[in-house]
Amino acid sequence: MVSDVEHPREEILADRAQNGRAEPLGIIAGGGALPRIVAQEAAKQGWVPVIVAVADGRASDWSPWPHLSIPWSHVGEGLSFLRASGVKKIAIGGTISVRPDFRSMVPSFRTLSLLPDIFRAMRGGDDTLLRACTTAVARRGFEFVAIHDIAPKLLMSEGTLTRRQPSQREELALVRGFLAARRLGELDVGQAAVASPDRVIALEGIEGTREMLERVRGLRARGRIGDKEPCVLVKTVKPQQDRRFDLPAIGPSTIAEAAAAGLRGIGVSAGGALIIEADRLLSAAEVEGLFVVGRALPPETGASA
Amino acid sequence: MVSDVEHPREEILADRAQNGRAEPLGIIAGGGALPRIVAQEAAKQGWVPVIVAVADGRASDWSPWPHLSIPWSHVGEGLSFLRASGVKKIAIGGTISVRPDFRSMVPSFRTLSLLPDIFRAMRGGDDTLLRACTTAVARRGFEFVAIHDIAPKLLMSEGTLTRRQPSQREELALVRGFLAARRLGELDVGQAAVASPDRVIALEGIEGTREMLERVRGLRARGRIGDKEPCVLVKTVKPQQDRRFDLPAIGPSTIAEAAAAGLRGIGVSAGGALIIEADRLLSAAEVEGLFVVGRALPPETGASA
Repeated sequence: MVSDVEHPREEILADRAQNGRAEPLGIIAGGGALPRIVAQEAAKQGWVPVIVAVADGRASDWSPWPHLSIPWSHVGEGLSFLRASGVKKIAIGGTISVRPDFRSMVPSFRTLSLLPDIFRAMRGGDDTLLRACTTAVARRGFEFVAIHDIAPKLLMSEGTLTRRQPSQREELALVRGFLAARRLGELDVGQAAVASPDRVIALEGIEGTREMLERVRGLRARGRIGDKEPCVLVKTVKPQQDRRFDLPAIGPSTIAEAAAAGLRGIGVSAGGALIIEADRLLSAAEVEGLFVVGRALPPETGASA
Repeated sequence: MVSDVEHPREEILADRAQNGRAEPLGIIAGGGALPRIVAQEAAKQGWVPVIVAVADGRASDWSPWPHLSIPWSHVGEGLSFLRASGVKKIAIGGTISVRPDFRSMVPSFRTLSLLPDIFRAMRGGDDTLLRACTTAVARRGFEFVAIHDIAPKLLMSEGTLTRRQPSQREELALVRGFLAARRLGELDVGQAAVASPDRVIALEGIEGTREMLERVRGLRARGRIGDKEPCVLVKTVKPQQDRRFDLPAIGPSTIAEAAAAGLRGIGVSAGGALIIEADRLLSAAEVEGLFVVGRALPPETGASA
């Protein structure tokens, strides 16, 4: 597994050990399987997970861990809850499909003091938003840790993880896809693209990967992608991204969605993306005949047509 | 109207006059109102329009002009038809939602000789495809003319065309949208983007502007765009684009689609985009309260997040 984090894992674990008792780990949890995996992994290592469920994560059952489910307007209460639980370190993960719309909500009293930071944060794309929120939270005495420092097995490794290897033309599609996804990331828009050797098919905006793949399925059903045009999904970390937050992720459902869209495989930035439930994901890929590859350095030349 | 074409209009018109009789103008016609407007305008100026209908254009009625409707596999017959009709100059326009899938079709005999050029063409995005097709067609003795040389009133002018002006925040959304759309164009992907002052919402892939706007409508309906987040559509010419082909276009239906998606207005590259049925388009914009602005030089700084 490749890991080039700024905060070495050993140090984080050492911190925890020094306490002499189980240290709480705050987890700001969106939707999907990821936050629960992180909580389980943290518990296994002796942390006490303390969950603040937001957005899509509010639908999940967070027992047996201490947890609080809050709307965006009560994010201040979320931080108070973490502080009251003795949390110093926070990890954040899971899907957040509804962006906080602070302009049309009535914030709670505890959230009010966060608003100046939040409004500054709203001026950028998602990455800018996250970075600014970090600063706001750090200023209140918390430290963010990366999910893959808690659960290193989640980090995408380099190489082909499936029996099936990309063909020469699929390799060209990967090169084009990585180029497009990186450019998209530079604009702080999305992290995913679908490409063939000949062209870029779709780019991820705020709709997310699942809906982009549904779109590709529709395009294919209507004959707008040729039967023999090999298409691939690429997900890659943004060049400027703080790797403690919002790494691109693939999970078993990504395989199902990619297969439904008629894709040949998936390319992901190694050491800069999460692979969720890798075992289930890879057996699904084998069944569907898709390849899954991790690439450490996306090729930046050769397909700039 | 701004016009910076490589082939001055006077020269084209002079050519036609020297013939002493009505000269045919070949029109390769996709779908939508555009090809018919070009044919009507050409006829008004004394050309005889000769139509080769392809892709989406095959559904239209092309009488009273000489016309041939062909599948992609018979593009060779199309050129023969134009040559037999005495055509030397060709304009191309209209929507082409189905890209030719030459790999899975049986070409006609007349198309066979075009295939090497076509396969070379298929290796790039849409712009590369068009440029390569041009070369193939030019090598067969035809010359391409720009639609806006035939019908200059179609070319988007500079300035605000509606009573409603963009607000300060809408202006920020335009800047961000132009930046994203230009970057997208550099990748030879699409020509359109939807942005707010805070972020890029959607980028056009091969699905086209109409479907991108439907997507934005869906995102808004599901609360993924804030009620008070002002969003705009931007369409702009690709930096490397040969302006005789595939200029981005807006028409009356664009206004309806943008309004349905809850957008505040539309920004278009002046002198590098077509405005189809401008009168109907602008009255629709007034009714919906949308602004329509043409910008000669998209601002490239100030919103790079």
